[in-house]
Amino acid sequence: MVKANIFQGVEKKNRRAADVAATDAKAFHAVVDSRRSVRVYANDPVPQEVVDACLDAALKAPNSSNMQTWEIHHVVDPVKKQALIEACLSQPAAATAPELFVFVARPDLWKRNAGWMLELLNAQPKVPAAAYQYYKKIVPLAYSQGPFGLLAPFKWLFVNLRGLRKPTPRGPIGKKAVLAVAEKSSALASAHFMLAMRAHGFDTCPMEGLDSLRVKRILGLPRAAGITMAISAGRRAEEGVYGPRLRFDAKHFVFRH
Amino acid sequence: MVKANIFQGVEKKNRRAADVAATDAKAFHAVVDSRRSVRVYANDPVPQEVVDACLDAALKAPNSSNMQTWEIHHVVDPVKKQALIEACLSQPAAATAPELFVFVARPDLWKRNAGWMLELLNAQPKVPAAAYQYYKKIVPLAYSQGPFGLLAPFKWLFVNLRGLRKPTPRGPIGKKAVLAVAEKSSALASAHFMLAMRAHGFDTCPMEGLDSLRVKRILGLPRAAGITMAISAGRRAEEGVYGPRLRFDAKHFVFRH
Repeated sequence: MVKANIFQGVEKKNRRAADVAATDAKAFHAVVDSRRSVRVYANDPVPQEVVDACLDAALKAPNSSNMQTWEIHHVVDPVKKQALIEACLSQPAAATAPELFVFVARPDLWKRNAGWMLELLNAQPKVPAAAYQYYKKIVPLAYSQGPFGLLAPFKWLFVNLRGLRKPTPRGPIGKKAVLAVAEKSSALASAHFMLAMRAHGFDTCPMEGLDSLRVKRILGLPRAAGITMAISAGRRAEEGVYGPRLRFDAKHFVFRH
Repeated sequence: MVKANIFQGVEKKNRRAADVAATDAKAFHAVVDSRRSVRVYANDPVPQEVVDACLDAALKAPNSSNMQTWEIHHVVDPVKKQALIEACLSQPAAATAPELFVFVARPDLWKRNAGWMLELLNAQPKVPAAAYQYYKKIVPLAYSQGPFGLLAPFKWLFVNLRGLRKPTPRGPIGKKAVLAVAEKSSALASAHFMLAMRAHGFDTCPMEGLDSLRVKRILGLPRAAGITMAISAGRRAEEGVYGPRLRFDAKHFVFRH
């Protein structure tokens, strides 16, 4: 059908279906099925090599325009860790956790990252002009909202007028919408991280009910950063999971059109 | 340390570290490492049992307060599918895809879901009062913003005054912030889904650059819904991936405090 060959020149192995590694669906579902939000941890720390492997898996998550507007903060200093526990409202999932991480959205770093993408593209063979244009024109159009977001109303008008005639991305419009895009990517990384921990035999608990302002202070982050979630990690204690997994009937959530 | 035993009465197997299934970290990383955003698909459809298994994995994602404010729409009708492709700006990742899904955030359904959570709790043995209170008091406090969001400024004032003295969750304040919470949960489900497809030997491409207004019309969704992302699925064609995975150096994204 549509034949689009951006990056024609790259190594063959990156472009061939046949080279894809064999995967084990059953092993994957065992990870998903045994992942639970753990509220009480045993004391064992998570070995550094496991932490590193899980961080690596997190940073391989797909993300919006490959802009990688995310950060992962691992808090090990006892004073900072105690402050972070308190910012997580001292819940057991934080207070008993051997390891605490914070997943952060950094939409404010979009210019730096767009520049880095152009550098990475420069290092690739035969990059089509469209890829450069994407990071030079499209990304700035999406991310910049002008000083104090003053461009937002004009973007809104443009998008909605154009959208009357043809399919048009409707956002992001306004700084909060740009933050939401970065938060989604950061959430994708969070999911990779939690599943990876489980795959290594460890457990996690995502925490969104936290004092984001205090967390930003602890980590030295600007106000524009978004605290996607804190994630505690360790080995689940006996009785570390509060109950069975409760899900509503899938028929209310899956629709076939 | 802190000993909290909500749901004390549940089956032992849900509470014991020792009963956790053995997991295969290597198999998991093979899934993560071979997942790429696929831009051109082969024609093979995805078998329904694979779709079902991946949807199941998606709905097992952790999510904010277990409110499950998400939906997954699988578009198979040829007319709707063509309209969805066009709403995805006719990009090859949509146009060549055997299967198209849309992951949706539904913060507007919070009251329904909070009610369902109370029903599920009622069906559990020995649920502590705190769990009921959570869905009766805390969740409404977080989700409701009043008519036209009129409560938002008062929430802001309350949160920021209280926050001066003690750790206080700073959000969500305003309808957009509530939507962002739901979008994060929907993104976690999206990540589970994409990894599951890869584990079954299939591929995906997440698409956020789409006409969300047209997508809502196609799916019959209200304006309050959030189109988290469209995800195409199928088997990658030869040359279906445009290039090597490009990631910036992890040292810029991982911080140890």
